[in-house]
Amino acid sequence: MRVSTRTAADGEAMCPYRLVLEHVTSRWGVLVLITLLDRPHRFSELRRAIGRVSEKMLTQTLQTLERDGLVHRDAKPVIPPRVDYSLTDLGREAAEQVRALANWTQERMGEVRKARELYDAARER
Amino acid sequence: MRVSTRTAADGEAMCPYRLVLEHVTSRWGVLVLITLLDRPHRFSELRRAIGRVSEKMLTQTLQTLERDGLVHRDAKPVIPPRVDYSLTDLGREAAEQVRALANWTQERMGEVRKARELYDAARER
Repeated sequence: MRVSTRTAADGEAMCPYRLVLEHVTSRWGVLVLITLLDRPHRFSELRRAIGRVSEKMLTQTLQTLERDGLVHRDAKPVIPPRVDYSLTDLGREAAEQVRALANWTQERMGEVRKARELYDAARER
Repeated sequence: MRVSTRTAADGEAMCPYRLVLEHVTSRWGVLVLITLLDRPHRFSELRRAIGRVSEKMLTQTLQTLERDGLVHRDAKPVIPPRVDYSLTDLGREAAEQVRALANWTQERMGEVRKARELYDAARER
């Protein structure tokens, strides 16, 4: 395993990649990446597609992903201003893995629910 | 895309799978899953392998993963008590994807760092 327990034991050394992992698996990060896998979106389109996300949170999420080099922000010098967000090549790689993991989680929810029922029942006895 | 934006728009419907995703991508969840991919571990072995995790946090992480059906807890009726933790089949599936994502993040840290430098430099001008 390349993510060695030795690296893990060194808390500080673990941090840089850990932060990227947190960005791409954050609540809104996941949804932004998955939505942008389809096609580039304008800010307002992204907000509609994701739903329930505040303008501030979406802005922060996009800035974080842009700073990590995963999302490209393209501000067109037109009136009214138009800003398109798309995935970089790096972002596409991340997004595909995150989507696979999210899909897996959805597909396996039935098994997870069953496991939880058994776990809770065993503790109620 | 199976994780549809329609599901995402419905915040409540999104929650169940979202929670599992949070469990498997949590700081200690990731490390527990990756460590158990190698082989079953006793509690004390896990704690040493992961490092810097408090007994309480590790216990909570293991309980959450056990309740989700990802980790199997095997308490042997011996003296002194011996408890082994291993991955279930479901847990192995999750762990392999999480490890792939964690490895990808580590491999791409150089590119992420470069992107951040460019991003920060552009804003200092």
